Amino acid sequence: MTPDTLPAPGRTDAGTAPAPAWTFGDLTDPVQVLRALVACKSVTPVDDGALDVVQSALEALGFTCTRIASGVEGATGKDARVDNLFAVRGTSGPAFGFAGHTDVVPAGDGWSADPFGGEVRDGHIFGRGVADMKGGIAAFIAALARQPAGFPGTGRIALLITGDEEGPAVHGTLAILKWMKDNGVTLDHCLIGEPTNATEMGQEIKVGRRGSINVTITVNGTGGHVAHPHRANNPVHRAIRLAAALTAQPLDRGTPHFQPSSLQVTSIDVGNTTTNVIPSRALIRLNIRFNDLHTGASLEAWLRERCLEACEGREDFFSMETSVCGEAFLTKPERLARMIADAAELIGGQRPVYSTSGGTSDARFINTLCPTAEYGLVGRTMHQANESVAVDDLEQLTRIYDEVLKRYFEDA
Amino acid sequence: MTPDTLPAPGRTDAGTAPAPAWTFGDLTDPVQVLRALVACKSVTPVDDGALDVVQSALEALGFTCTRIASGVEGATGKDARVDNLFAVRGTSGPAFGFAGHTDVVPAGDGWSADPFGGEVRDGHIFGRGVADMKGGIAAFIAALARQPAGFPGTGRIALLITGDEEGPAVHGTLAILKWMKDNGVTLDHCLIGEPTNATEMGQEIKVGRRGSINVTITVNGTGGHVAHPHRANNPVHRAIRLAAALTAQPLDRGTPHFQPSSLQVTSIDVGNTTTNVIPSRALIRLNIRFNDLHTGASLEAWLRERCLEACEGREDFFSMETSVCGEAFLTKPERLARMIADAAELIGGQRPVYSTSGGTSDARFINTLCPTAEYGLVGRTMHQANESVAVDDLEQLTRIYDEVLKRYFEDA
Repeated sequence: MTPDTLPAPGRTDAGTAPAPAWTFGDLTDPVQVLRALVACKSVTPVDDGALDVVQSALEALGFTCTRIASGVEGATGKDARVDNLFAVRGTSGPAFGFAGHTDVVPAGDGWSADPFGGEVRDGHIFGRGVADMKGGIAAFIAALARQPAGFPGTGRIALLITGDEEGPAVHGTLAILKWMKDNGVTLDHCLIGEPTNATEMGQEIKVGRRGSINVTITVNGTGGHVAHPHRANNPVHRAIRLAAALTAQPLDRGTPHFQPSSLQVTSIDVGNTTTNVIPSRALIRLNIRFNDLHTGASLEAWLRERCLEACEGREDFFSMETSVCGEAFLTKPERLARMIADAAELIGGQRPVYSTSGGTSDARFINTLCPTAEYGLVGRTMHQANESVAVDDLEQLTRIYDEVLKRYFEDA
Repeated sequence: MTPDTLPAPGRTDAGTAPAPAWTFGDLTDPVQVLRALVACKSVTPVDDGALDVVQSALEALGFTCTRIASGVEGATGKDARVDNLFAVRGTSGPAFGFAGHTDVVPAGDGWSADPFGGEVRDGHIFGRGVADMKGGIAAFIAALARQPAGFPGTGRIALLITGDEEGPAVHGTLAILKWMKDNGVTLDHCLIGEPTNATEMGQEIKVGRRGSINVTITVNGTGGHVAHPHRANNPVHRAIRLAAALTAQPLDRGTPHFQPSSLQVTSIDVGNTTTNVIPSRALIRLNIRFNDLHTGASLEAWLRERCLEACEGREDFFSMETSVCGEAFLTKPERLARMIADAAELIGGQRPVYSTSGGTSDARFINTLCPTAEYGLVGRTMHQANESVAVDDLEQLTRIYDEVLKRYFEDA
């Protein structure tokens, strides 16, 4: 636990508008906070005031906020400009972090409610992002609002809120972490509020995530006429041998904390529609979700060996491009995860298990700074039409976060 | 040998222009005839007067000509209108046929001579189609012109000249054969003048051809997220298993007259560029050149079995489209081929071997009417820039055709 002095807060980018003097009815009610967030059409990379809602609420709770904009003004795609928020209360002592994102995926069609209306119906609140993950942010703000004045005494609470988690994630959490490093700000533990439960509360705490690598392999050959294959060198047949070798056996059988790694060939493309022609090139695209038995580098080496085998050792018969989206990681020690499990069991009556399954999250980045764990709402409807969460679940999560905060600083 | 009465000659299509009163310097000189043919830019389906050249020459030699147009006026592609020619001399007795095509593939770039100029340089004549196969037609016309008056006495000589061999071949030789059937015209043997020698005269007589089948297999599955492959059903992995099974073993080891059958996967296409998505469909395209151990139907059944194996017996996991371009065939009895070999050995000093290798030709259609054999020029430059044949080879082929004609009717 490293005490450190915080830099003077402020805006790092003059182009970002100041937060409005926005007021909530009752910050201890997560439903009210969540409805204010859902009203912002914050589809990545657009913010539409979502971070202002968070900043106003946190400033009302005594937090000092810094906006960290990143990306290129006017750009689209990977370099689109996004806004992020770092908020902190307290200047020394153990530092507990909460991380989340205000951006959401597009609403899409098929809704029976306004995707940005936050309608409450039959005990559920509807809206794009209520599960993934404006609900988690609302629960954390409400949990903070329920703490007594002066909490936690010695200690710091920080929030890392990004507007680029559903998008390329290049200018989101990575920009916040860079700002923290540049300014000497550290964290001791970080809870990420992503929806981690498949169908009901109390199922899973994510204590790590599999790694992910995207690979494109180009297999070369010599084109020709199908009637004279001995004068050609069919790259499709070589690509078939390679793809068969890559998918013949599972990469592993899993580890104590991880499911087996999974290699999925997502596309093979030649684009030859001339029936009597052998083409000169074939392309294989694949993704590997890998556990802690592998790294991006070890898989790249393994893939290269398979390529060489399928290409009779000829380097010129293939080329490979790889992009490691994240390495596999596992949170150790598990103090934070155990604390969340205790709180979830106490409040909800069911003890969640530790898990590393599913897709990636910004935990892959934050994990390089400090131990992380993820616990949030039920994600069943996330990214779908009629995304919704139960009001009771939102209240339960608020009480769990409340309990975790208390235990963390009592224990510290 | 079926004597039959020929119908009155004439044009079957009123839209075809009459043949001009075109004159040759010397019909016994294949170079002069070939240069007249090369001057016509008869790139399929365009005729540009090429059949008029043939018709004028044959009418000068006492042949009765019928033009057989087929296809749809103004259409492009498979149904483009093309013109064809049937010519005959004699009304009864054994019927010897000669078949060929006046259409050529596009000139393309890289020529050192006018592709339609017929330039003679260093003992070679240059031009698109001189080898494939205007040269064969010129040699046959010159051989006919060298026969004495009244030849062959009792007997018939017929020419089947199409303007659609390099194209879809739907409205070419098939239209001539239909016209012959409709009019009760038969043949006893047919020599096809395609270039059959790889690098020098006297190498190969084609006595059959492999069959050819084009196949498109669509493999179905269930798309999903790469992080959750158990909730999806990756059709690419099934396509890989299927393609690997299809290419694992040769189809056979060849037969006395045929090289081994060859299966070439010409394309695999998925078209998925989203790295985290498992697609729902994959497409495999392949061509099989098959020998007389197989038929289109037997291969279709074999492919269906492999599909079912790769798809765990599920019919709904795949669909297959097949198109048999031609069945494998072998000319029996080999009387015509033996006669050509004897003539080629006598004239050229080298006895060509019987072969069934290489691509398809219209022999696949004519073979349904009568025994066929193919012998022609050196095809090394066909379809390439600077297509050329040696003037000596053209003269040698003319003398071989001359000798075959003599022997055929002496022997009859």
